[in-house]
Amino acid sequence: PLVVYGLLGTSRTLAVGPVAIVSLMVAATLGDIAEAGGQDYAAYALVLALMSGAMLLALGLLRLGFIVNFLSHPVISGFTSAAAIIIALSQLKHLLGLSLPRSHSVTDTIANVADHLHETNLITLALGVAAIAVLFASRAPLGRLLTAMKIPQPLITPATKAGPLLVVALALVAVAAGDLAGAFGVSVVGDIPRGLPSFTMPRLGELPWSDLARGAALISLVGFLESVSVAKSLAARRRQKIDANQELIALGASNVSAAFTGGYPVTGGFSRSMVNFTAGATSGMASLITAALVALTLLVLTPLFHDLPRAILAAIIVVAVVSLIDAKGFARTWRYSRMDGSAQAATFLAVLALGVEIGILIGVALSLTLHLWRTSRPHIAVVGRVGTTEHFRNVLRHDVSTDPHILAVRIDESLYFANASYLQEQVMALVADHSEAQHLVLICSAVNEIDASALDSLEILRADLTTSGVTLHLAEIKGPVMDRLTGTAFLAHIAPGRIFLSTHDAIDTLQRA
Amino acid sequence: PLVVYGLLGTSRTLAVGPVAIVSLMVAATLGDIAEAGGQDYAAYALVLALMSGAMLLALGLLRLGFIVNFLSHPVISGFTSAAAIIIALSQLKHLLGLSLPRSHSVTDTIANVADHLHETNLITLALGVAAIAVLFASRAPLGRLLTAMKIPQPLITPATKAGPLLVVALALVAVAAGDLAGAFGVSVVGDIPRGLPSFTMPRLGELPWSDLARGAALISLVGFLESVSVAKSLAARRRQKIDANQELIALGASNVSAAFTGGYPVTGGFSRSMVNFTAGATSGMASLITAALVALTLLVLTPLFHDLPRAILAAIIVVAVVSLIDAKGFARTWRYSRMDGSAQAATFLAVLALGVEIGILIGVALSLTLHLWRTSRPHIAVVGRVGTTEHFRNVLRHDVSTDPHILAVRIDESLYFANASYLQEQVMALVADHSEAQHLVLICSAVNEIDASALDSLEILRADLTTSGVTLHLAEIKGPVMDRLTGTAFLAHIAPGRIFLSTHDAIDTLQRA
Repeated sequence: PLVVYGLLGTSRTLAVGPVAIVSLMVAATLGDIAEAGGQDYAAYALVLALMSGAMLLALGLLRLGFIVNFLSHPVISGFTSAAAIIIALSQLKHLLGLSLPRSHSVTDTIANVADHLHETNLITLALGVAAIAVLFASRAPLGRLLTAMKIPQPLITPATKAGPLLVVALALVAVAAGDLAGAFGVSVVGDIPRGLPSFTMPRLGELPWSDLARGAALISLVGFLESVSVAKSLAARRRQKIDANQELIALGASNVSAAFTGGYPVTGGFSRSMVNFTAGATSGMASLITAALVALTLLVLTPLFHDLPRAILAAIIVVAVVSLIDAKGFARTWRYSRMDGSAQAATFLAVLALGVEIGILIGVALSLTLHLWRTSRPHIAVVGRVGTTEHFRNVLRHDVSTDPHILAVRIDESLYFANASYLQEQVMALVADHSEAQHLVLICSAVNEIDASALDSLEILRADLTTSGVTLHLAEIKGPVMDRLTGTAFLAHIAPGRIFLSTHDAIDTLQRA
Repeated sequence: PLVVYGLLGTSRTLAVGPVAIVSLMVAATLGDIAEAGGQDYAAYALVLALMSGAMLLALGLLRLGFIVNFLSHPVISGFTSAAAIIIALSQLKHLLGLSLPRSHSVTDTIANVADHLHETNLITLALGVAAIAVLFASRAPLGRLLTAMKIPQPLITPATKAGPLLVVALALVAVAAGDLAGAFGVSVVGDIPRGLPSFTMPRLGELPWSDLARGAALISLVGFLESVSVAKSLAARRRQKIDANQELIALGASNVSAAFTGGYPVTGGFSRSMVNFTAGATSGMASLITAALVALTLLVLTPLFHDLPRAILAAIIVVAVVSLIDAKGFARTWRYSRMDGSAQAATFLAVLALGVEIGILIGVALSLTLHLWRTSRPHIAVVGRVGTTEHFRNVLRHDVSTDPHILAVRIDESLYFANASYLQEQVMALVADHSEAQHLVLICSAVNEIDASALDSLEILRADLTTSGVTLHLAEIKGPVMDRLTGTAFLAHIAPGRIFLSTHDAIDTLQRA
């Protein structure tokens, strides 16, 4: 999967593999239809990978990747910060040397750790804290030091990226020298099976198809959303781009390849991509190199890692993810827009409290709802002429001249079902406030669409205005909107009202009349 | 409930009472927690009415009625047409004189009727068909006939509304004269318990609260949506308005009153409102009169209706609802907009195939999705000066003059997360097509909002343009959007780009420079 993604994917930093959420979903799907550890269990996992892959490929070929555009930046940022905290907390037990079961929520994790805090292995904790300190020091501070020492830049960059290698090497030496695993109970990685995975053939034929398909559909969707959230968030930091359709194809192909190499469904993972990103990955080549090194490790190096303390791996992950907790961006978004800020905060809290899947769905639903709510109550401005120009602006914000018989009203939104009745009410209220008005010019420079519901409302508005002795005119209708209106009953009934090209034109003509 | 709604409601034609969908939902909720017909069953029904009422009142007082704005006209129309067909089909068994169980779907209804078609009671069918013919004839044709006979209009209107009364009277005479019920097996209404409902006190205290609350929440929501869809659809035909918050309060109070008068949850019903509407109801007074007549009927007239054939009631309902199948409106919507037409067709089919609740939810979801999809790919126009005016329009649609060094681009949409990356791509593509351009003026006359995601995209766009040797300027930013942008990093970094009040101003200044 790593090689396939490296060749086909558009993210330069995404690392593909078995990730926590998808693993849980695979276990949940298989648990219902096979006995854990049995022969069917593994066979069904292969089929699940194949089906997920096929579904993702199909979505990509149908070019349905646009759905990811509905992930707003605040939602992604809230998701990222919360996921970083979840990942960092999940490593806490390794840093403390506790052996706890996998937990299913943040509160679970914290409660478990708190209950067993007295069992903390102090040597493990010291190793972990030292590793974290070295890792932080080896980044910006080391860079500044080397720069101050006038070391050339081409040497500084690799030096500041070498932190993880350094702590791994130091830790292996420390464990061997002090017999930390044996005498002090420091938990180490232990035996890793040696050798490359063999080619596998997913078993087809008599299968619990509907259970597998339901599982595969959910796994594909959540896996894709997680993968693209991670890829987009990392790409945004370097101003790079992700092509969602190509991502679907790349992830689909990766999953198909997983099915043939003894794997289960894979997706772009958060912590592994972050390690990749901070280590300086700049192209799919990073995935190929990772795959080659994993192969080399499996073939030759596994014994080397036997004594690596788990706390060291945990330290590497924690340092990688804490930089993602974006408190500054949070404050900036909140200052810019309360709505975006709320969506971000809600996503952050929902991911922490309810988990990644539900959290991101809540974030997406909330940002869409807020957007729709805002467009359902559009800004409406009465405008007047700026000096002697042909430019018209809001009477409340600019020094403009108006004609008491002509009410020029600019609607700052496309007209569609959610604001159709609001428009009617607001315009009639404005007419009630301007008793001398004989003409109402509706300026449509900001109206990018008039849907069928709004068209009905405009017809009612025209009739209501006629009853009040006011003629409705339209100005600055855009080409695509005008194309649509041509031939409708609304336009047929608008006379004596007229359609003007510009507001200037409208006011000028009506004043002369 | 009828009296309470008549006093508090804003619809002039909505008739409140126990309706089919809500009745099914009440039965489903109570079936889980009590034995049908038992004492708890009736007691829980009262509590359910009280809870639904309290929930609706709370929503109304919190002014959350705006959610109904998300019901677009095409969705309401598709829903109405499909519901009319469902109701007409549900009366088919009464018209044919078949005694069939209540069915739960359209296909169910059709299959049941087809299976028992050979059992049709021909006398019943003849009565029903005759009633339908009289009902149709008593409307427009009778009106035309009376007008041709120079009968004064104040006499014509009541005459054309009296059709239902006439057929009921004729049918009662026919049944009595021909002993149709006894000798020919025509199904009649039968015994109706006599007397007014007594005052009831909902039992509080030890109750299955959570089951009741879940049921009440669903019943309130579906009941409110159905009620307001019906009320809006009838109000739209007469250019009247519905205040959703007041509707919530009126329906809430009606339900509370149901709890104290031996009722179960009520809502605005479709067929009863339609009968009310076609009979010419013009105010809440119609509800009060209905309530008074129901009371009178219960006290005195019940024996009169003993022999009324069910087929006559069915005929009245069928004639009332078929006028709601809006084929013309369907064609008009489809011609105006494929998107609105698809939403309408999908709602229609979904309501028919999957039922009222799911159908309307699918319609709402689809119309929102289509709206979002459309705004995610905004119309973008390169504009030029119209003649020597200060007005700028699309170069592809108007005869305009442009400057090769200045690219003026109008974005026809608010900038938000769903179109943020689309904007970037499209503008960069335009710049690539105009190799001589040194300035890009982004005309924001149609930009009613720039959210945090779009702000990020604009920053990236500005940087990308700078790299390509193009300076980004903004023109015609609206007041509320400019307020928001003030103080952001984007505005701080825009120099040497500038913010112009009008497009004319921008082109003029840049050409002189």
